[in-house]
Amino acid sequence: MAFKITKKDKDYSRWYTDVIAAAQLADYSPVKGCMVIRPNGYALWESIQEILDRMFKETGHENAYFPLFIPESFLKKEAEHVEGFAPECAVVTHGGGKKLEEPLVVRPTSETIIWAMFKKWIMSYRDLPVLINQWCNVVRWEMRTRLFLRTSEFLWQEGHTAHATREECQEETLRMLNVYKKFVEEYMAIPVIAGTKTEKEKFAGAETTYTIETMMQDKRALQAGTSHNLGQNFAKAFDVTFQDKDGERNYVWATSWGVSTRLIGALIMAHGDDKGIVIPPKLAPTQLVIIPIFTQKKELDMSVSIYEELKEKAKNLFTLKFDDRPEYSPGWKYHEWEQKGIPLRMEIGPRDVAKKQVILVRRDTGEKISCPIIDMIDTIQKILGDIQESLFKKAENFREKNSFRSDSYDELKKIISHEGGFVHAHWCGSAECEDKVQEDTKATIRCIPLESNKEEGSCIICKNKSDKRVIFSKAY
Amino acid sequence: MAFKITKKDKDYSRWYTDVIAAAQLADYSPVKGCMVIRPNGYALWESIQEILDRMFKETGHENAYFPLFIPESFLKKEAEHVEGFAPECAVVTHGGGKKLEEPLVVRPTSETIIWAMFKKWIMSYRDLPVLINQWCNVVRWEMRTRLFLRTSEFLWQEGHTAHATREECQEETLRMLNVYKKFVEEYMAIPVIAGTKTEKEKFAGAETTYTIETMMQDKRALQAGTSHNLGQNFAKAFDVTFQDKDGERNYVWATSWGVSTRLIGALIMAHGDDKGIVIPPKLAPTQLVIIPIFTQKKELDMSVSIYEELKEKAKNLFTLKFDDRPEYSPGWKYHEWEQKGIPLRMEIGPRDVAKKQVILVRRDTGEKISCPIIDMIDTIQKILGDIQESLFKKAENFREKNSFRSDSYDELKKIISHEGGFVHAHWCGSAECEDKVQEDTKATIRCIPLESNKEEGSCIICKNKSDKRVIFSKAY
Repeated sequence: MAFKITKKDKDYSRWYTDVIAAAQLADYSPVKGCMVIRPNGYALWESIQEILDRMFKETGHENAYFPLFIPESFLKKEAEHVEGFAPECAVVTHGGGKKLEEPLVVRPTSETIIWAMFKKWIMSYRDLPVLINQWCNVVRWEMRTRLFLRTSEFLWQEGHTAHATREECQEETLRMLNVYKKFVEEYMAIPVIAGTKTEKEKFAGAETTYTIETMMQDKRALQAGTSHNLGQNFAKAFDVTFQDKDGERNYVWATSWGVSTRLIGALIMAHGDDKGIVIPPKLAPTQLVIIPIFTQKKELDMSVSIYEELKEKAKNLFTLKFDDRPEYSPGWKYHEWEQKGIPLRMEIGPRDVAKKQVILVRRDTGEKISCPIIDMIDTIQKILGDIQESLFKKAENFREKNSFRSDSYDELKKIISHEGGFVHAHWCGSAECEDKVQEDTKATIRCIPLESNKEEGSCIICKNKSDKRVIFSKAY
Repeated sequence: MAFKITKKDKDYSRWYTDVIAAAQLADYSPVKGCMVIRPNGYALWESIQEILDRMFKETGHENAYFPLFIPESFLKKEAEHVEGFAPECAVVTHGGGKKLEEPLVVRPTSETIIWAMFKKWIMSYRDLPVLINQWCNVVRWEMRTRLFLRTSEFLWQEGHTAHATREECQEETLRMLNVYKKFVEEYMAIPVIAGTKTEKEKFAGAETTYTIETMMQDKRALQAGTSHNLGQNFAKAFDVTFQDKDGERNYVWATSWGVSTRLIGALIMAHGDDKGIVIPPKLAPTQLVIIPIFTQKKELDMSVSIYEELKEKAKNLFTLKFDDRPEYSPGWKYHEWEQKGIPLRMEIGPRDVAKKQVILVRRDTGEKISCPIIDMIDTIQKILGDIQESLFKKAENFREKNSFRSDSYDELKKIISHEGGFVHAHWCGSAECEDKVQEDTKATIRCIPLESNKEEGSCIICKNKSDKRVIFSKAY
């Protein structure tokens, strides 16, 4: 585990893969485009799942499971949808030793198969709303793989809901966007900007796609989650109508929303440093690691008794590990746990114990804190809270420092190509201007922020009228 | 939801699918061979996952995730393995719009891809044991589908471990068999017989397959879980060696073990009755449903206050739901919740409240119990415990009543074709005798029980020497 991590400033992309290797989060597999999520990485996904799943259930959703395979003809029922996804599909042509009559697509997303089932289940207004979520794997063929960020197969959750009215549908779309925002900000300690996607960037088959956009440490944007108002598109494609209270038949309104294992990539790139990943306490499977410093058994015994006391008192407050492996030195262990991103380390040495204290070391700042044994529980909880807060603030400050308002296209181009970051600029709404920026700078419109105020202005490219600023940035 | 369930005695197979439809556990999908697990069914899978996952972690295992796709060539590296699984595989031949150089198989099980990774991760004895589990979907092509019992795609967990010695490997194989036994007996309330599979019935690639066998209400056996000692077969196929403490290189020892959504089928067929599924309390997502009987708001308010009090006190003790839907009658609700298998129902009517009591109705026996409001918490907990215990005992009695010792082949044939059930009989160990029984009766050897005593005897078919009885039965 004496893995050497490339410095962030030297090569951000190598730093990223090194951090993943050092913490044993994931590995390349012999299957092209597919990754292996190793136990340390999967434990992060389990934390994410546990918290989000609770939030989904609190907002009335239930989990279900739909088939991995989708008949090709289903995908074709929604015109935009097939156009968007067909080029990325993996196709099963043989099963049980025989060629299939109709090829099956491995789900790239499940709207079509789910709406085929909704047709069976939804008859009347009494059957609505349907609020379903699915945790599963999906496949979208990729040639250029990047662990967690871009792989042919990835894990995600996809929510799919059906509603009686346009209003309810829109409410649900925004409710789930806010669940994502709350989760990413409060648990992952990453600030987000919520907004809508442009026509060009929206989900294939949606009326409107809402997104939460984050800034990584290399100043690129990363889309952390999306929530789609699908209007009646899928209901029409699959002929799903319901009888309303007045006996009339209407098409059903739909939403879908998802986040994926990509969030783990966001976590690494939002908080990691030259020592490796830094896990926010609220997401850390283990929050505190205790490392005894000892040469004699008597000294180890003292640490054990402190650990035992702590373990008992820490129940339901925080999670901890005791690392008494005799074959490694304390220094070696510090290094290893830093690479694994554990938020807080406790060192227990004989001299500290004599002073009735222990040493606590913060992963995020490296700060060392002497802590009287009698105050351990309170102090640890307080520090964990501080770390959570300060990771968020640091990321927020970083984003603010690297966000610019610009009204000059030359300046925008210069910022994108030199400094990097988010440029808030006026845009007329045309696909031509959007494309031009991308051609000139590789930046795209990340979103039209929900919270930005109306402001009279002119498009930074064509100078036509615009009433709102949008965010331009290079992105993952 | 006024779904009419076919009587069990009339047509067991239709009864089974009716029970699933009535409780909305699952549905047929338009994708051949694949099912949809609806929220009520998925909630059962979540209960199963939660409990087993805790048991796996308590025994030192970690979760990870490996690719869905396996190169065809990998499957071929272990000769028995490919012979067993190739005929059942779904094959991806196209990805991203192009024909693939090498076809990819959708995992039917993950030994091969996991051992390809173990080769990268295991170098020395310090890297052992590796104790990994994966929750995922797998695909084994099926033409004749049966919800939960036999579908092309199903959900399962697969444990995969690597060890330094044969002894440790065998210990692990039995440890996990016992975890399964404990889970199925204590939580699902289904008695099991643990044993080994015959050569013919063992997992393709295993040295020994251990199984837990259960008896369903139609007296057929259902294999509820398996744990395989894979010996060094996969280590040799993928060339996985490690350096031991003395510096010598040896092949690694392997186990794998799994249970699937099939367990939900077992649950239905072990405890269900003519009213529908019966869920054992320890597995029930909701243990108690409260149904207020009211004509006036004042009466409903009384029920609400009893519910509120109960909800507060029930935290961490049991789970409950309050069904105050005004559009349905109490009788209609009783029926619906019986079909959904909720273990216990509370009826709160004005006359009962006047007597400071409520009525509790057991789902398993239909017994009605008057319960003083002041004793609610204790009484409910006690009854839930009684239901759990009595479901197990009932299933155990049923199995005992339908298990026979026989030393006459004519008798065995008669039992299998008439009464049904388990026949404990001597078997010489030859594949010929095993095949003959299957040809004559369709029964197979379910297992060679671990706990059956050595006993001198002669094979029920060929009369050659035998030292142990095995179990013959028809099976799912």
